Amino acid sequence: MGLATLIVIGCIAALGATDGPSRGNVWPKPRSVVKFHNDGFVIVSPNSFRFNVTHYKCSTLDDALVRYYKFLVLERQAGFTERIHFRTSTNDVPLGQVHIDPNATYRGKLETLEVELMAPCEHYPYFGMDEHYELRIDSPDLPYAAKLVSHSIWGILRGLETFVQLAAPSADGTALHMSSCMISDYPRFSHRGLLIDTARHFIPLETLYTLVDGMEASKLNTFHWHIVDDQSFPYQSSTFPELSDKGAYNPLSHVYTQNNVKALIEYCRIRGIRVIAEFDTPGHTRSWGDSHPELLTVCYDETGKPKPILGPMDPTKESTYKFIDKFFAELAEVFPDKYMHVGGDEVIKDCWKSNPDITKYMKMHNFTGYNQLESFYVDKAVQTIYALNKSTIVWQEVFDNGGTRLDRNTVVHIWKGNYPEELRKITAANYMTLLSSCWYLDHLGVDWKVMYKCDPQNFEGTPKQKRLVLGGEACMWSEVVDFTNVIPRVFPRASAAAERLWSDQTVKDIADASNRLDEFRCRLVRRGIHAEPSRGPGYCPGEIF
Amino acid sequence: MGLATLIVIGCIAALGATDGPSRGNVWPKPRSVVKFHNDGFVIVSPNSFRFNVTHYKCSTLDDALVRYYKFLVLERQAGFTERIHFRTSTNDVPLGQVHIDPNATYRGKLETLEVELMAPCEHYPYFGMDEHYELRIDSPDLPYAAKLVSHSIWGILRGLETFVQLAAPSADGTALHMSSCMISDYPRFSHRGLLIDTARHFIPLETLYTLVDGMEASKLNTFHWHIVDDQSFPYQSSTFPELSDKGAYNPLSHVYTQNNVKALIEYCRIRGIRVIAEFDTPGHTRSWGDSHPELLTVCYDETGKPKPILGPMDPTKESTYKFIDKFFAELAEVFPDKYMHVGGDEVIKDCWKSNPDITKYMKMHNFTGYNQLESFYVDKAVQTIYALNKSTIVWQEVFDNGGTRLDRNTVVHIWKGNYPEELRKITAANYMTLLSSCWYLDHLGVDWKVMYKCDPQNFEGTPKQKRLVLGGEACMWSEVVDFTNVIPRVFPRASAAAERLWSDQTVKDIADASNRLDEFRCRLVRRGIHAEPSRGPGYCPGEIF
Repeated sequence: MGLATLIVIGCIAALGATDGPSRGNVWPKPRSVVKFHNDGFVIVSPNSFRFNVTHYKCSTLDDALVRYYKFLVLERQAGFTERIHFRTSTNDVPLGQVHIDPNATYRGKLETLEVELMAPCEHYPYFGMDEHYELRIDSPDLPYAAKLVSHSIWGILRGLETFVQLAAPSADGTALHMSSCMISDYPRFSHRGLLIDTARHFIPLETLYTLVDGMEASKLNTFHWHIVDDQSFPYQSSTFPELSDKGAYNPLSHVYTQNNVKALIEYCRIRGIRVIAEFDTPGHTRSWGDSHPELLTVCYDETGKPKPILGPMDPTKESTYKFIDKFFAELAEVFPDKYMHVGGDEVIKDCWKSNPDITKYMKMHNFTGYNQLESFYVDKAVQTIYALNKSTIVWQEVFDNGGTRLDRNTVVHIWKGNYPEELRKITAANYMTLLSSCWYLDHLGVDWKVMYKCDPQNFEGTPKQKRLVLGGEACMWSEVVDFTNVIPRVFPRASAAAERLWSDQTVKDIADASNRLDEFRCRLVRRGIHAEPSRGPGYCPGEIF
Repeated sequence: MGLATLIVIGCIAALGATDGPSRGNVWPKPRSVVKFHNDGFVIVSPNSFRFNVTHYKCSTLDDALVRYYKFLVLERQAGFTERIHFRTSTNDVPLGQVHIDPNATYRGKLETLEVELMAPCEHYPYFGMDEHYELRIDSPDLPYAAKLVSHSIWGILRGLETFVQLAAPSADGTALHMSSCMISDYPRFSHRGLLIDTARHFIPLETLYTLVDGMEASKLNTFHWHIVDDQSFPYQSSTFPELSDKGAYNPLSHVYTQNNVKALIEYCRIRGIRVIAEFDTPGHTRSWGDSHPELLTVCYDETGKPKPILGPMDPTKESTYKFIDKFFAELAEVFPDKYMHVGGDEVIKDCWKSNPDITKYMKMHNFTGYNQLESFYVDKAVQTIYALNKSTIVWQEVFDNGGTRLDRNTVVHIWKGNYPEELRKITAANYMTLLSSCWYLDHLGVDWKVMYKCDPQNFEGTPKQKRLVLGGEACMWSEVVDFTNVIPRVFPRASAAAERLWSDQTVKDIADASNRLDEFRCRLVRRGIHAEPSRGPGYCPGEIF
């Protein structure tokens, strides 16, 4: 151990060049990082450090500063066990002293980060919002030494996340330090989502909050709430409360009330995270039938007798559309985002084929196939949503089954295999698209590296086609997860997708990512998000049991 | 809903034949269950129910009654959400009333379970302990209506677990009911273990306790503590404290103190669970070298220069054996079980081959190969342990590499593939054996059904050979688990192995097991053990968020 100069600075100390390889790195990797002064660094002490808001203010910013101050404290505390370790192992640095490696440039103690929001806060995050920010950390002796600037509250939020991630306990654990650097950062894709299925298993609100915390840390900006499905209907509708009274696993304990939904949307909003609700139709609707069997198709057996189990929605009844109109009108008010996800995946046609009324209807309308019937329904559903002044996202089958009738503003969401070809086809037809195929978190064998390598623009197409890729979503279907295991199943693998969607296309060094992801997952754990280990044996600094 | 007679019994009610298929089943399945009186049932109310100890008593029994009374209360509480559900859905049974299906035989309310321990309590559980019990549940009007009998405290513990698992909320959630039945039960194998690796990741004590809770519920009786390994040395030795001071991830927060170890052993003891410590040698010992590099072999590169990384223990030095003698003597006192696991797996020979001193030593002793050198070491280690009046378990390599010199009392632990052949070979050589190959919980793609199907006596051999199979262990190697995800990774899959090791060989109906495991995993969740979902969409009765 070649230790050098010892400088007393209160009870704060920092160790320079002997730091581990993965301290103070940011996930997802920023677009541009310029380091100053021969890897210079500053010290941050939460005891004296304050944010200083110099321009526009709002409660979203105020909440964020409180939150990120807390995260800074958590990073500072992470030094505790390291400090003990270091002292036990070497016993050569008295507490309250700093030893500085002569090869590193100590730039002083950072007392303030100036936070300069250049425009008034927007209330709700939205597709295409400005998330660009600039962050500069330098010697406190210089004017504007440390400053975070953005033209948008959303950029400020992303920049605060980066700021806190730059902070890391020194190797001896006695201080937080931070590289002197200039960061200019913005996302590669505007839509960076996490899908959570709350129907196969009910996911309690508290767990959803934790998932959103992990999204914030990963700079994911879209919570895709696959809220109901065949198995249960936990959304408590104000217009049709019977949907959850009959369709929830339990109408008291396994529902999301209107207040629950409002609270979650607000929790997301102040973190710059959109909430897109998916009420999947016309398939995946068995639970709707618990209270409204008239919505679903009666299926018949070979002898022409009705079966006990109902099929997809009945697209031939006027009453189905009346119901949908009324229900979607409620949803359009409850969920403020411009986009609604209308599903449209995996419609099983056998039941429709067995039903004589549907056969009659199809003849009457000169429908040549069941895909056409499906498109007929989806077109109507999409039109209903447009009439509510919203845009729609649909699963890829809607395009595959006759997409030419789809409205131009519809976004097509890819989930099946062979996605490069699907990306090509959808964008060639001039539709916008989202990718999820390679980020199915319920696929247990697939580790983060595989997810990390998947690039949504890696297909044959013109630059114009590539631009039609809006981003993607990691999907946590909940057949095999509930509150017991969903958090470690989602993180840090969803964070691997998050870096792919945020960082430059050229960022793909697995070894480097592995080091940084390891540090990042420990940050998640320190924030109470129980992300699982990502790369074999080890431990997280700051773990105390 | 064809409801019949309504009878008021305080605020307790039970629903008979309309109960779901998987209520009140026991996991692992008892050896013999005879149901009385046309599927008759009794009601149990924790408010009035008491255990009545009629013969021998001890603190282990006292603790157990408190614990199982609590579990009974948890099952009773599980009815809460069901009750709400039922009432919301049908609104036809006023609270405080019982409706009885005329097809089921209501046998009355159970006020007491007589607990008859026929012999004084033994202090520590041990290999081959008596776990047999008989349990009878019948009409409270009969003498000895409900009675648990065993000749051993360990049998009483297993019987109490069964008793509580028989209790299940009625479908309407208003009461706990229990089948009238006579159960006679005992395990197929005496050694039913769970291996936990606390070296690749440190597992906090609280998490270990939760794992033991899950073992108790699953009737697993052996906690195999793979406590140290290459990556870290969390055991805080009283003789050689430097081992964890230098070898733990962190000597303050990532160690098991002597008190921690005592507490865990006691926690296991009162649950009838043995603790077998494994201090794996001569490989897997890198962390020992952090404080005692002299124990490990110096490896040389092609040019004859020493490499910076040390190899396995050096079996040629007298000092190695002196150290081992002293250290194992401590362990023999700390861990009361008759068996110690000495490891012996995956010894990489390259380092030994590169070392000229070892080459010289081997020539001097006329060793013809490195396996012989390895056996030389293991024999000495095993002899040391026998001298301490203990028995040993070794990994299969020790047998594979020259097993004929192994002491007859050594148990050989199988972990590699092709285990039927290995089972055959080891038992043909007249050694006792344990199986783990098919129960590697770190194998993510392997679901519980695969583990359930694995039978340790499914190999070609004589009945005598089959009897040499003492049982097996599910193994949770911790390369990719820590406190964030270990519980749902272990349960309920380890419980699938537990049924294989307890129940009759003929119990292998996957569909039936799936129903019962689903109920069992919800019992675990109710006890605070976050076992993951085992069979697709659904929810646990009693979940309240």
